[in-house]
Amino acid sequence: MEKQTLGEIAAQKLLGMIQDKGYTAGDKLPTEAELVERLGVGRNTVREALRILMSRNIVTIRQGSGTFISDKNGVADDPLGFSMIEDRRKLTEDLIQIRVMLEPPIAALAAQNATAEDVRVLGDILLELESCMERHEDYAEKDSQFHAHIAGCSHNLVMTNLVPVITDGVRVFAGSVRETEYDKTRESHRRIYEAIRDRRPVDAQQAMYFHLMFNDNRYRDEMK
Amino acid sequence: MEKQTLGEIAAQKLLGMIQDKGYTAGDKLPTEAELVERLGVGRNTVREALRILMSRNIVTIRQGSGTFISDKNGVADDPLGFSMIEDRRKLTEDLIQIRVMLEPPIAALAAQNATAEDVRVLGDILLELESCMERHEDYAEKDSQFHAHIAGCSHNLVMTNLVPVITDGVRVFAGSVRETEYDKTRESHRRIYEAIRDRRPVDAQQAMYFHLMFNDNRYRDEMK
Repeated sequence: MEKQTLGEIAAQKLLGMIQDKGYTAGDKLPTEAELVERLGVGRNTVREALRILMSRNIVTIRQGSGTFISDKNGVADDPLGFSMIEDRRKLTEDLIQIRVMLEPPIAALAAQNATAEDVRVLGDILLELESCMERHEDYAEKDSQFHAHIAGCSHNLVMTNLVPVITDGVRVFAGSVRETEYDKTRESHRRIYEAIRDRRPVDAQQAMYFHLMFNDNRYRDEMK
Repeated sequence: MEKQTLGEIAAQKLLGMIQDKGYTAGDKLPTEAELVERLGVGRNTVREALRILMSRNIVTIRQGSGTFISDKNGVADDPLGFSMIEDRRKLTEDLIQIRVMLEPPIAALAAQNATAEDVRVLGDILLELESCMERHEDYAEKDSQFHAHIAGCSHNLVMTNLVPVITDGVRVFAGSVRETEYDKTRESHRRIYEAIRDRRPVDAQQAMYFHLMFNDNRYRDEMK
């Protein structure tokens, strides 16, 4: 067992405090001086604890205005260690394989569980994505947002954190595949959205499956 | 955009160096003095860089013997931010929901892709798991190892890193469910193993599905 430093112990305490108070993204933490008092440790230990929670994306420090709860929900940067996988092509293929396993049932869950407000936001993202495509601009980021929001619509908290890690991974590592199939992609996104909006889980699942398979084929073609 | 500190820039450089040299788990890194020279930065910056890579579980520092590549493959502690999810019961249910989506197709992939050596190791883990059960000991850790190794047998690098995060999460948060159904659990593990060993992906998938559903039912019964 590795020994915990004072900073790590204080970080654990501070995390407990954050949970007890029910702080959420954007909330401001007490000042360093207040934390010294509440945690009963020195200023350097408080700083070390804040540094640890910052590296875990639990808090974020804005110079001059204080410490806030991060909007990254404690999901680490590169949480699954992609940077340690040397074979980028294999990594991309493995990420696509996971998307094909995960995202179709997620889309079904989204069609089952999305609230009216969820559907409204998903529709807005789709419109922005489509207008990006109409202007023939790079739509990769809007596309990630679309898939991340579908994960959110599932109301599975872990999926909401996990899906962006996988889709962003594909975006980063399959960067070579140009987003040029505007019409086909547009159509398949719209099919997914409409199935979720109309509460048709089976159709949503199959539409997502078709969409991912189509992208996978494009990736394979480009790699040839 | 947040500004990168000198330590973060040096950490990035050091990570690049680790990748270029093809270092793997357990390999020793150059000394602090050598890193000062190679990275062209001061000693404090090297220390900060090492601290960052340590917090990401890329390296581990063993007091007195030096810095080594961590065997955690750069998978962060609590990578998906479970500690920020307040509702523990919902978290457990969501984790189980993900297992039910992910692990059956993973078992199928394992039956398709496992090497003879993979199968041999899986058989050894199963025997240890069974002897734990025969002695009516807590077999939770061996069980995690069994599921993690099946993920490894899939040869999908991301799954290998992801599955333990999910299964360990269930183990931690569903801690209240006692592992007492020795016979049933024993039988369902054996069915999974034999299907993987005999290269029957469809049977492996269904056996895993049965196993997880059985556990899910036990969890729901205990929560009533």
